[in-house]
Amino acid sequence: MSDVKKILGNYSTDITRTIEEELSAITPNNLAEASVYLTRAGGKMLRPALTLIAAEAVGGNRESALKSAAAIELIHTFSLIHDDIMDQDDMRRGMPSVHKVWGDDVAILAGDTLFSKAFEIIIGNKGTTSDQNNKSLATVADACVKICEGQALDMGFEERFDVTEDEYMEMIFKKTGALIAAATKVGAIMGGASEGVIDAMYEYGRLIGLAFQIQDDYLDLVSDEETLGKPIGSDIGKGKMTVIAIKGLASDDTGRLLEILKDDENSNEDITEAIDILTKCGAIEYARNLALESIKQAKEVLEILDDSSSKQMLVDIADFVLERSA
Amino acid sequence: MSDVKKILGNYSTDITRTIEEELSAITPNNLAEASVYLTRAGGKMLRPALTLIAAEAVGGNRESALKSAAAIELIHTFSLIHDDIMDQDDMRRGMPSVHKVWGDDVAILAGDTLFSKAFEIIIGNKGTTSDQNNKSLATVADACVKICEGQALDMGFEERFDVTEDEYMEMIFKKTGALIAAATKVGAIMGGASEGVIDAMYEYGRLIGLAFQIQDDYLDLVSDEETLGKPIGSDIGKGKMTVIAIKGLASDDTGRLLEILKDDENSNEDITEAIDILTKCGAIEYARNLALESIKQAKEVLEILDDSSSKQMLVDIADFVLERSA
Repeated sequence: MSDVKKILGNYSTDITRTIEEELSAITPNNLAEASVYLTRAGGKMLRPALTLIAAEAVGGNRESALKSAAAIELIHTFSLIHDDIMDQDDMRRGMPSVHKVWGDDVAILAGDTLFSKAFEIIIGNKGTTSDQNNKSLATVADACVKICEGQALDMGFEERFDVTEDEYMEMIFKKTGALIAAATKVGAIMGGASEGVIDAMYEYGRLIGLAFQIQDDYLDLVSDEETLGKPIGSDIGKGKMTVIAIKGLASDDTGRLLEILKDDENSNEDITEAIDILTKCGAIEYARNLALESIKQAKEVLEILDDSSSKQMLVDIADFVLERSA
Repeated sequence: MSDVKKILGNYSTDITRTIEEELSAITPNNLAEASVYLTRAGGKMLRPALTLIAAEAVGGNRESALKSAAAIELIHTFSLIHDDIMDQDDMRRGMPSVHKVWGDDVAILAGDTLFSKAFEIIIGNKGTTSDQNNKSLATVADACVKICEGQALDMGFEERFDVTEDEYMEMIFKKTGALIAAATKVGAIMGGASEGVIDAMYEYGRLIGLAFQIQDDYLDLVSDEETLGKPIGSDIGKGKMTVIAIKGLASDDTGRLLEILKDDENSNEDITEAIDILTKCGAIEYARNLALESIKQAKEVLEILDDSSSKQMLVDIADFVLERSA
C-alpha cells in the first residue's frame, strides 16, 4: 500500500508545480493565498494522478495530460472549499479550512477563482488537438454540474431520514464519482484513446468513485481523529445520511439511532452508541461489501487495456481506495 | 432611450428562451429554481444583447452567437448571486436575492451551477468553428478570473479609506468591465471578425463597462429607491469606496464624510448629509464626467466598423449606459 502512496507522491510533484505556476498571477494577495492554500496543505492528489496514469495506460504520455490533471485537482479543491463553507467543516487536510482562515467571502471567491482557472488551463493546453481539449472541457463541465447537483441532493438529505439507497447512490455518484470518472476519462482523451476505451475509463473512475465515497463514510466511523484530520462520527453528529445510516435505520427497531441522528447536540457517548448500533446490525459491514463489489467491477473494466505498468497502477489504486485510512 | 430598452427587450426573448432550455435539466428542484430565479426576475440582458449585436455589427449573424450570449448572462448571474451573499445585499432586481430565498448554501451552489453551465453551453455550440469556441471560452474564463479578483479587491477596499483612483479603476475594470468586454469580444469572435476588430470590440466593452460601474455608483446616490430596487446611499451606509467617495474624501476638510463612511449605523440623515457633501465638493460631477469621457472614447473605437444598424445600436447602448436610471 505504501507503494501506491509513493506512486501518487511521484505524480504529485509535477501536478503541484503546474498548479503553483498556473495560480501565480492571481491578485490580490489574500485571494492568491486562499486559492493555493489547500494545494500546499498536501492532498493525496488522487484525481490528477489518475488522469496522468490513465493517459499513460491508454498509450499516451504524461506530459500531454499534465495541464488537464492540474485542472481536475483545481475543480476538486474548489468543491472542497465551497463544501466546507456549506457543511461548516472547520478542518481540512489536518488544517483549518479556507473559510476558517480567510472568512466565508474570500473562501467563496477562492473557489470561484480556482474554478475559472481550471477551465483556463485546459483551454490553453498545447500539444493536444482542439478536439481533445474540447472533449476534456465538456467532460469537466459536465462533472462540475453534477458536483453541484450532488451537493444539493446531499444537503436535501440532511433534513430527511427516509432517504433510499438508490437516492444515496445517485447523490454520491454526482458528488464524488463524477469528478473521479472525469479524471480518468480526461486522461484517456488526452492520451489519444478510442471512444470505447474512453468510455471504459469513465466507468472505471465512476466505480472507484462510488467506492471512494462509501469508504469515506466508513472511515468517518472506524478511523481515528488524528489520521482522519477531523472528529470521528462527525456525519452522525450532523445527522447526515450515508448508506450506513440508511441501512442502520432500516434495522434499528429501538428508534435510538434515529434519535441520535436527529439530535443536534450529541455527546461523545451518543456517537459511540450510534457506531455500536451500526456495527451490530451489520450496516458498516454492508457498506464495506458494497465498496468491495464496486472495486471488483472497476478492475474488471480495466481488462479492455493492454497490460502495462500504468494499468497495474490503476489496479493498485482501485485496491488502495479501500485500504486507505484517511 | 426607450428605443434602447426596446432593442434589449427584443434580444432578451431569444436569450431567455436559450437560458431556460439550457437550465431545464438541473436537479434537484430547489437548485433548478434557485438557478433560473434571477433570469426570470427580468434583468436588462445588456451583456448578452451586446454579444448578439457585436456579432451582427462585425458582419456575422445573431444565431451563431446565441449560445455564447446565454453563457455570458449566466456568468453575470453567477457573479450577482455570489456577490449578493458576500455583500449581504438582500434585494436584487426588485426581489429578494437568491440567498434570502434559498439560504447561503443553495445560493453558493446555484452560482456554481450557472458557472458550470456557462462553459458547457459554449463548448456545445454548433455552427461555429472549434477555434471560435476555444477563443470564446478563453475570453470568458479570463473574465471570470478577473471578476473574482475584482470582487476581492473591492472587499479589501471596505476596510480601507485611502484607496486611490487608480486602484479603484483597476477594481471596477476587473469586477464589471471585464465581463462586458468579454461579451462584446465573444460576439465579435462568433461573428467571424478579424483580430483587430476583435480587440477593438473588447476595448469598446471595457470602456462602456467602466462607465457602467461609475454610473452604478452615481445612481446609488442620485436615483430613488423604487427605481433602483434598493435603498439610496447604500454604498455610503456600507462605507464602500467608489470614485465619488475617493474624490469626496480628498476634498472634505471637515472629516465629516470620513466619519459617516466609517460609521456602521448611519441614520437616513447621515446618508443625506454625506450626499450633500459629495454634491457640494464636486465629487458626483467628477464621476459623471469620468463616465462621459469613457463613453466618448467607446464610441470613437467603434469607427473601425462599417456603418450598419447594429453599429448604431452599439452607439445608442453606449449613450444608454449614462442615461439609464437603474
